[in-house]
Amino acid sequence: MTRLAATARLLDRLPVAAPTVLVDEARARANIAAMAAKATASGVRLRPHFKTHDNVGVGRWFRDAGVRHATVSSLAMAERFARDGWHDLTLAVLVNPRELPRLAELAWRLADRGGALGLVAGTPEAARAVRHLVGDTAPLWLKVDTGYGRSGVPWDDRGRLQDVADAAAFAGLLTHAGHSYRTPRDELAGLFAETARRLAAARDATGRALQLSVGDTPTCTAVARFGGVDEVRPGNFVFFDLMQRSRGVCTDAQLAAAVACPVLALDPGRGRIVLYGGAVHLSKETLMTADGPVFGYLGTLADEGFGTVLQDAPLTELSQEHGVVQVAPGRWDELTGGLHPGDLVAVFPVHSCLACAAHGGLMTLDGTFLPRDTDGGGR
Amino acid sequence: MTRLAATARLLDRLPVAAPTVLVDEARARANIAAMAAKATASGVRLRPHFKTHDNVGVGRWFRDAGVRHATVSSLAMAERFARDGWHDLTLAVLVNPRELPRLAELAWRLADRGGALGLVAGTPEAARAVRHLVGDTAPLWLKVDTGYGRSGVPWDDRGRLQDVADAAAFAGLLTHAGHSYRTPRDELAGLFAETARRLAAARDATGRALQLSVGDTPTCTAVARFGGVDEVRPGNFVFFDLMQRSRGVCTDAQLAAAVACPVLALDPGRGRIVLYGGAVHLSKETLMTADGPVFGYLGTLADEGFGTVLQDAPLTELSQEHGVVQVAPGRWDELTGGLHPGDLVAVFPVHSCLACAAHGGLMTLDGTFLPRDTDGGGR
Repeated sequence: MTRLAATARLLDRLPVAAPTVLVDEARARANIAAMAAKATASGVRLRPHFKTHDNVGVGRWFRDAGVRHATVSSLAMAERFARDGWHDLTLAVLVNPRELPRLAELAWRLADRGGALGLVAGTPEAARAVRHLVGDTAPLWLKVDTGYGRSGVPWDDRGRLQDVADAAAFAGLLTHAGHSYRTPRDELAGLFAETARRLAAARDATGRALQLSVGDTPTCTAVARFGGVDEVRPGNFVFFDLMQRSRGVCTDAQLAAAVACPVLALDPGRGRIVLYGGAVHLSKETLMTADGPVFGYLGTLADEGFGTVLQDAPLTELSQEHGVVQVAPGRWDELTGGLHPGDLVAVFPVHSCLACAAHGGLMTLDGTFLPRDTDGGGR
Repeated sequence: MTRLAATARLLDRLPVAAPTVLVDEARARANIAAMAAKATASGVRLRPHFKTHDNVGVGRWFRDAGVRHATVSSLAMAERFARDGWHDLTLAVLVNPRELPRLAELAWRLADRGGALGLVAGTPEAARAVRHLVGDTAPLWLKVDTGYGRSGVPWDDRGRLQDVADAAAFAGLLTHAGHSYRTPRDELAGLFAETARRLAAARDATGRALQLSVGDTPTCTAVARFGGVDEVRPGNFVFFDLMQRSRGVCTDAQLAAAVACPVLALDPGRGRIVLYGGAVHLSKETLMTADGPVFGYLGTLADEGFGTVLQDAPLTELSQEHGVVQVAPGRWDELTGGLHPGDLVAVFPVHSCLACAAHGGLMTLDGTFLPRDTDGGGR
């Protein structure tokens, strides 16, 4: 049997009629365990970013691995995980002044439970606004730009660092080295060290004993040991995706999320498979390849879980609800024989965070649906 | 007052704390009225595609304009609008074999109300499967490829057209001229005529008296009169967006949807505004410009509704939750003076369909929230 037909037979066990995110629970738990073990061995706090899965069921897998702290990227996400028993959260985005009243409520609720809601400020005004409206319950983190260039106080701007640090009592300095996504694999461990060094220099500029928090999957995966920081906040590593794979950050065997899509049509003449599965299921995140932009690759499923990425079966077109797989010349029969309209295929997404965000929940390979929220609701 | 500060003051009237799609109801109703009038004058049925707004409240604006038929792109969307009183729907995507049982239920329900659920097939097998599982209640449409190349029977493949048409009784031929999105403005009316001509040739090949249905916003907007077809199915025209604008399909004054985003930080030194508003609120759809990819432009608001697009304030970076506006050199003070963190800006999206799909509902400029569904639920 061809690999796609064999995969379709295995996917037939699942109660899937429309595009659905599938998660290989064993792989995800292994990804979690590896990162948790490295954090423990390094003596740093692991505060994984939950925006990748944004799912209370997956959150429990982290809890099973001993993780008690988490990072979130929206107020709604913070409230969702707080409802499911997470008491120590950091909302690792510049605080939104419009949400301060609701943030204050949540901060007080978590403090009552012995936890905390960490908030982030990058200016004296923001720091004062948090203290004014939220009080002292929320640990404040000063956002530092260690080279990504998106937001935060530049790590080497001593004057501004002091100004912000003077405006309120901070728990620590926080950075996101997002430029790691464009850094070659063999320079990632060095980037982790350099990020920690810059954050320490920023701390010295403030003259205060502040904690240091860093977080991005590429450097946190590449480095052998977390040195020079107090906390790490990677997120994507729970599922990884084609973007991480294309940069050598993960192996095929670590890819833990794919989108199951029904086949709608097969066109052997042009080597094309039309899928029910489009931008609203995968996002329009693209991987640039030598042959043009790719929105995902088909993958295989084996009895024990996800198999490998089918490099000869890229999604090369994506509209709102549909995707087109352009099978490599000469590979049609070998890959697609025995595949029919109505069969399911598994698409590895370019960016697992955005693919998960597009769905109201995830399904494990035994067919269990994990709704995003305890109330079964959406984002 | 600068234009962004003035816009922020007007947006302050709205109950918005996090990124929210705003709709200029007067503009949207004008867009609907213009398309409905052209359809009436042409003597063709307007069956607008509801995937752009996917919102029962906006559906009622179409009903107010006398529209009684609609197109949808998913089963969930069909069920949503059926619940809100739409009895004549076409699910204008190749039928998904896995959904046939639920499609049959809906088809019978609509038939009971004197309506119908149109379904689409492109092969003899699909046509027979529909007839087998859904029966004769659902009008079947034969998907024809008139040049877009995504799916359907090629319009000039007489043999395949006859094969499919022989497999079941069809109501008509349906095409989506998606290549209109890459066709120059002054060739769009010609493309509409050519699409109708090709569809008529395909009908002749089947030797049957079949209806002809076409639909895409660029050609349906550009053509002065709908000739040679029975039905038109444009969708995006209700809101339009930057993509249509960039191709000259709409004017600034027809843009009817924008995403209100809180300002998180202002960096005058680098001319950057950091917004709460990212890929999960706008989608990663990009517009290629001479200066690189753009994910949206800031716009203005006036007392009477949306104003214009601020070409000097493009969103040039977009992560999961954040966007960065790179203000053109020398324009900072003139555009942003008086703008502060916590203020709202309005971002015109590149693709309004995907921006709307990312939210659970839309807000009109008087602050009324229109949930996607009558039950207040999400997608």
